[in-house]
Amino acid sequence: MSQQLPQNRHPDRPPSRHRADGSTRLDSYVDRYAARTQGMTASEIRALFSVASRPEVVSLAGGMPNISGLPLDVVGEAIADLVAHRGSTAMQYGSGQGDPRLREQICDVMRLEGIEAHPDDVVVTVGSQQAVDLVTRIFCDPGDVVICEAPSYVGALGVFKAYQCDVVHVEMDEHGLVPSALREAIAHVQAAGKRIKFVYTIPNYHNPAGVTLAAERRPEILEICREADVLVLEDNPYGLLGFDEEPYRALRADEADGVIYLGSFSKTFAPGFRVGWALAPHAVREKLVLAQESATLCPPSFSQMVVSAYLDKHDWLGQIKQFREMYRERRDAMTGALDDMMPAAARWNVPTGGFYVWLTLPDGLDAKAMLPRAVTARVAFVPGTAFFADGFGAQSMRLSYCYPTPERIREGVRRLVGVIEEEVELRHTFGTGLGTARTPGLNRGYDGPTTDLT
Amino acid sequence: MSQQLPQNRHPDRPPSRHRADGSTRLDSYVDRYAARTQGMTASEIRALFSVASRPEVVSLAGGMPNISGLPLDVVGEAIADLVAHRGSTAMQYGSGQGDPRLREQICDVMRLEGIEAHPDDVVVTVGSQQAVDLVTRIFCDPGDVVICEAPSYVGALGVFKAYQCDVVHVEMDEHGLVPSALREAIAHVQAAGKRIKFVYTIPNYHNPAGVTLAAERRPEILEICREADVLVLEDNPYGLLGFDEEPYRALRADEADGVIYLGSFSKTFAPGFRVGWALAPHAVREKLVLAQESATLCPPSFSQMVVSAYLDKHDWLGQIKQFREMYRERRDAMTGALDDMMPAAARWNVPTGGFYVWLTLPDGLDAKAMLPRAVTARVAFVPGTAFFADGFGAQSMRLSYCYPTPERIREGVRRLVGVIEEEVELRHTFGTGLGTARTPGLNRGYDGPTTDLT
Repeated sequence: MSQQLPQNRHPDRPPSRHRADGSTRLDSYVDRYAARTQGMTASEIRALFSVASRPEVVSLAGGMPNISGLPLDVVGEAIADLVAHRGSTAMQYGSGQGDPRLREQICDVMRLEGIEAHPDDVVVTVGSQQAVDLVTRIFCDPGDVVICEAPSYVGALGVFKAYQCDVVHVEMDEHGLVPSALREAIAHVQAAGKRIKFVYTIPNYHNPAGVTLAAERRPEILEICREADVLVLEDNPYGLLGFDEEPYRALRADEADGVIYLGSFSKTFAPGFRVGWALAPHAVREKLVLAQESATLCPPSFSQMVVSAYLDKHDWLGQIKQFREMYRERRDAMTGALDDMMPAAARWNVPTGGFYVWLTLPDGLDAKAMLPRAVTARVAFVPGTAFFADGFGAQSMRLSYCYPTPERIREGVRRLVGVIEEEVELRHTFGTGLGTARTPGLNRGYDGPTTDLT
Repeated sequence: MSQQLPQNRHPDRPPSRHRADGSTRLDSYVDRYAARTQGMTASEIRALFSVASRPEVVSLAGGMPNISGLPLDVVGEAIADLVAHRGSTAMQYGSGQGDPRLREQICDVMRLEGIEAHPDDVVVTVGSQQAVDLVTRIFCDPGDVVICEAPSYVGALGVFKAYQCDVVHVEMDEHGLVPSALREAIAHVQAAGKRIKFVYTIPNYHNPAGVTLAAERRPEILEICREADVLVLEDNPYGLLGFDEEPYRALRADEADGVIYLGSFSKTFAPGFRVGWALAPHAVREKLVLAQESATLCPPSFSQMVVSAYLDKHDWLGQIKQFREMYRERRDAMTGALDDMMPAAARWNVPTGGFYVWLTLPDGLDAKAMLPRAVTARVAFVPGTAFFADGFGAQSMRLSYCYPTPERIREGVRRLVGVIEEEVELRHTFGTGLGTARTPGLNRGYDGPTTDLT
């Protein structure tokens, strides 16, 4: 070891965080963060949560499931039984891969969507958010490309950004991801010599777009990815929450090698236990377990065994049916109110499951610029830009109907319409200069999400 | 977008994972993992768990706390009350930073070690393992240096490896980290133009070394890091588990700006809830919350509220006192058995708290090479090499006394001594060529951990 003393500091060292006058800078650590940390910024949804949680605001912003229908007595009894009889196991460290019994039950759940899987290939995660994180961790170097729908889930985009991936958005229409657009995007990226690590897709009751990938498109999407040698990351938190139909067959049901499937109990049971999972090809599963051990040693044993006991002791499918009926009523409240009140120039889709309506404003309006005025009018939404990695989506917004009551949803839409009409009026009076930007490529005549990308 | 079709694949693309004959390679994804994934390999501890969990094996390998003393009735009642009265909150998404009430209680816990902190500066994590992960995530680019004790916690080393950090080990003696060695290491690394992101230290009842940083060394360690402008990551899961003494004053108690403090309920309550925390300077805390949101959206609400209710409703300090007495009895069983049976040429320390004894074998013996023979003799330990990033530690092992009963501990030591004596005998008969290597620098005449580093 060198005998050089620390005061002989290397000239390349950043200056001390301690100033001569003893004060510190606002973030005196700014010089020392990792490069990836520059990409970690508060999402638009996050800033909204504090505003939208005020009781006088109708929040059409959040994605919190309404779990008031859960039978607390049943859950309480299941947990009491768990503590009394298996408490010392439930409170101890468990396997990094997750509880073996729960992984069997997860295979039962996935069977509803046509998936035949072995519990050995399931990794339990701290919500499916952590599954997105771990998959990205093991696959993505900085600069690798992830293909996403346009728009895509804000939480996944945050992960891809934190791992310094390049996100390429691909157009959706009212039937979901457009196969020809996917084929072109893959070819374009590969021709540019960049590595595509996976296509991230939410096939069912999309967040935020509300659309579902048509059954007849699914084999084509798989075939495109297979031919191009690109993995599919199928994120499916809402698959069992269709209103009028049997669950769609998962992409994973027809392709075991090329698909990593993510599931969650957050919307079909409760999010507070943070239990999700990944189903992956065996070799990938091994890497995911190592990544999980590095991230947390193991997912919470107690949470997992509560979910397992709930699945064992409760009519969980009957409970999901109740959830579906409740969410359908709220969907009806929202789309009914939109039909009744929204100006003709706005467009939206009618989701057949899940939590979200994607609404595109009349030309020239900017949802993000409008948000402060909406909050003043006591209604909140998420601006479309949150769901794009590249600043697009300004003319659109996500409206959630999952959490407020039907009455509150109608009141929220009424307030929102008031704000939009005022904006349109102002725009007619003062022209286009009102903090809004005309985004090209938005009028393509369908009520699905508009992608701002061609 | 280019019209190039996917079959015109770019010549640099890796070959398809689908072979012409339809078979797949063992890991057909091997070409696509991120660079960091090459560093994710199964730890020696992990491979051991499956072997050591066989009932006939006395495992002195694991670090599982013995939670059989927890009052299941009290925990069960607290949870029943939680579900009945605050179930819809406990089962819902929560804040990314963690439950506000729990963060207040965490400040009360840290006050026992002299820390005055605000709940705003606490971030709840999925065990303190996740805190190590998130701190490393926000600070470390590939090639950044993390300074660790020699030996250091295997789980933290795994994280540093997964983030492609360079680990530099610094010598400890029976009083913990050696200040002059730390000063030299920092100067050496900085003179080489490399960035040191933090010094990772476990000051109390070290895992795996069993030693504690002497109170009189603590100001000096802080001063060295302050002068060199290097953060300290203070990992303190065992601080309240001292056998005969008041808790040591935390490093964080005397330096708020330059120390990130990590705590855990895994050893003072139960690990199955996976509740740990980081206390960080305000600006760093903000980054940690963003990283937590990206990693999991939020830590499990239910787990957090169970821990909070337990702290509210139970004499948790009295419970920790019981744990301490139980672990002291087991420490006595282990060190007594070592005194009675172990050959004189072996050396070990007598920990004053925590879970671990660090034992160095007679010269020429290799703990890793010996492990299969030990398991055949129905005793397991962790070879010292697991606790070094660089392959050192072959002559040492970690012995845990936390989980087996005193009788089993004595039996385990008896079996271990049998294996060691046989190894010594073989070595005398056949010389040094028996799969062992003489490691230089191991005889420095103290019973603390030997570092293999000078």
